[in-house]
Amino acid sequence: MPPKSPLAPAQFPAMPPIPGVRLAAGACGVRYRGRTDVLLAELAPGTSAAGVLTRSLTASAPVDWCRRGLKTGRARALVVNSGNANAFTGRSGVRATTATATATAKLFGCARGEVFLASTGVIGEPLPAERIVAGLPQLQAALRDASWPEAAAAIMTTDTFPKGASRTARIGGATVTINGIAKGSGMIAPDMATMLAFVFTDARLPSRILQRLLRDGADRSFNSMTVDSDTSTSDTLLLFATGLGAAHPRIASASDPRLKDFRKKFDEVLLDLALQVVRDGEGAQKLIRVDVTGAASPQAARRIGLSIANSPLVKTAIAGEDANWGRIVMAVGKAGEKASRDRMRIRMGGITIAARGERVVGYDEGPIAVHMKGREIAIEVDVGVGRAKATVWTCDLTHGYIDINADYRS
Amino acid sequence: MPPKSPLAPAQFPAMPPIPGVRLAAGACGVRYRGRTDVLLAELAPGTSAAGVLTRSLTASAPVDWCRRGLKTGRARALVVNSGNANAFTGRSGVRATTATATATAKLFGCARGEVFLASTGVIGEPLPAERIVAGLPQLQAALRDASWPEAAAAIMTTDTFPKGASRTARIGGATVTINGIAKGSGMIAPDMATMLAFVFTDARLPSRILQRLLRDGADRSFNSMTVDSDTSTSDTLLLFATGLGAAHPRIASASDPRLKDFRKKFDEVLLDLALQVVRDGEGAQKLIRVDVTGAASPQAARRIGLSIANSPLVKTAIAGEDANWGRIVMAVGKAGEKASRDRMRIRMGGITIAARGERVVGYDEGPIAVHMKGREIAIEVDVGVGRAKATVWTCDLTHGYIDINADYRS
Repeated sequence: MPPKSPLAPAQFPAMPPIPGVRLAAGACGVRYRGRTDVLLAELAPGTSAAGVLTRSLTASAPVDWCRRGLKTGRARALVVNSGNANAFTGRSGVRATTATATATAKLFGCARGEVFLASTGVIGEPLPAERIVAGLPQLQAALRDASWPEAAAAIMTTDTFPKGASRTARIGGATVTINGIAKGSGMIAPDMATMLAFVFTDARLPSRILQRLLRDGADRSFNSMTVDSDTSTSDTLLLFATGLGAAHPRIASASDPRLKDFRKKFDEVLLDLALQVVRDGEGAQKLIRVDVTGAASPQAARRIGLSIANSPLVKTAIAGEDANWGRIVMAVGKAGEKASRDRMRIRMGGITIAARGERVVGYDEGPIAVHMKGREIAIEVDVGVGRAKATVWTCDLTHGYIDINADYRS
Repeated sequence: MPPKSPLAPAQFPAMPPIPGVRLAAGACGVRYRGRTDVLLAELAPGTSAAGVLTRSLTASAPVDWCRRGLKTGRARALVVNSGNANAFTGRSGVRATTATATATAKLFGCARGEVFLASTGVIGEPLPAERIVAGLPQLQAALRDASWPEAAAAIMTTDTFPKGASRTARIGGATVTINGIAKGSGMIAPDMATMLAFVFTDARLPSRILQRLLRDGADRSFNSMTVDSDTSTSDTLLLFATGLGAAHPRIASASDPRLKDFRKKFDEVLLDLALQVVRDGEGAQKLIRVDVTGAASPQAARRIGLSIANSPLVKTAIAGEDANWGRIVMAVGKAGEKASRDRMRIRMGGITIAARGERVVGYDEGPIAVHMKGREIAIEVDVGVGRAKATVWTCDLTHGYIDINADYRS
């Protein structure tokens, strides 16, 4: 068990109960011993759902399951297990999802399609769903409205700390709550950029509005981060709205101005969770923020940012606290997006290193060397062709990443 | 200085002289001390040239220089330095190439455009071309026809062994020779997949035929390998034909059947050099061959292969001698190319692990665990959608890579 990431927040945040959401975590022995590995969430009748799922062509069985459930947009329960991804498990994987959802639906007297599923862990091993099914009655009996840290802990794999975020938002005159939990620290890249994240609110919003909010927010958070460029088969981001909070005006469109504060706080929850995932990047010692400006389009800016953020040479240089900015030049050059070599400007830690395609006169590495020793590294690149920009986050590539991943299964 | 790669060939190959090629290596103190760092090659009048250069948008000044020289396709000299890439050096970089080429052209009484240049090393530092220019007369005096190991050593940076390959080929009734040298061990990915490689032959072939041979051969060698997915600003593969070997029939087309043996041997030289670069991948402990079959097109097959070969999770698992084939599934899924999850077949070390989208019944990891302990790892993936195939090579991702790259400049 690697030690807690030095980039972890000081503590798990205070997360108030969400009316209509009850949680329980249990130890079903899916793979791990001596720890919780299944999360059950009960959602009140009338809960609407939205989701963004991995684009992997080898998506897991629970991802397929959720894709179907999202068509109706109604949710009554969520079952998440860690230790086994139920991915590349063929027909046995499909049977495992069906068995888990059927048993859960029976407990709550709902339709099977209203049960959402997510699994994370090893790929390719049959999921022993019978252990989850056997544990469900006990989990149901343990359901409470305030076990957010326990819920976040139950879904961890190589995570070194549980991840949660909470905000309150105003819709019309009413205050609603948004709570999110997430897990993920490797196999983290767009799209999607986390393995699992679940966000709950007591606002009353229909599925199509949730879907719009989620897609927009994901692009600026989970889809703008990378740990190792590896996209998981299981990436799942789900949003549930119970509608049981303070009464607020009916919202019929995602562009309703009364949603402005909710959207802002919701985006904050997503970004908070996404950055916690980066902060727990396997072996991470430094959080890296890459701001790309002067690009031809926001998409080009993000791709250039990700090319820098995914470069092993950039990430190892930062691990070595070396301001090797030539590797940033290389990563811009290989991104395949329009960039002007001869107008490019590069800054690290707020200090200009290169401009107009070459190192600035009188460049002094001293102040940048000090910045490189910190926990948070800032890279700014202006590629000199347009006005579009994007921000991308990653972490450094260290011996810890190799330690964790050269021996994960054993 | 890291120890010699355990994957290195037993020794530098025997390389006969090539009529019309004379070489000298010298220590000009570009950056390193106590070692050679400049290679000068004199090419006989009438030598034709071809080249494949990096597609990086932040290409180095010598890459720009070679691109211009290739328009005429005539070559009289090649000057290569290690220690400084002369990349992202703005106008001073252009001046450095001009100064080096001008001084060299003067020595040999040729046009400046007939001098080819390549530089490898740190990016963004001005190249002290005056040190190269000052060393040229001594290099000229030292020109010999059989200093291939010295030439290969002079162009090394983090390489742990010099790389050479040689074949003889028949064109019509005549025997000609093909010699190549290469350097590169990090920042290695398509396209191009090596930093520098130079191939020389005494065959008499026009530039446009050389260009065709080189592009075809590069696709199956240098463009089918990756160490760390990072494409250099300086990748340069040049081919020179002096025409001073045994007389052979005039060849007017790249598809002339009399070129068949030459093409085969030439491809062998390129692949031999490319594999030596992979074998010297920074920190490499294992050579990995990925065969993709059943793809929709050769391009799709290669992209899927590179997705596997570039995956840090696949590469660290292999470093840990762990047959974590689930990560191969993941890498196929993220490649963005057509693949059938439910028809996919995966083999490692010749043993079938998964078929029809799930682990085979009675799967025994024992024999594969033995294969994983070897130096050469074989991965075969049939993606079940078509008949196209490709082979891609890479190495594992180890602590050595981090050691080398977290502290390269200092």
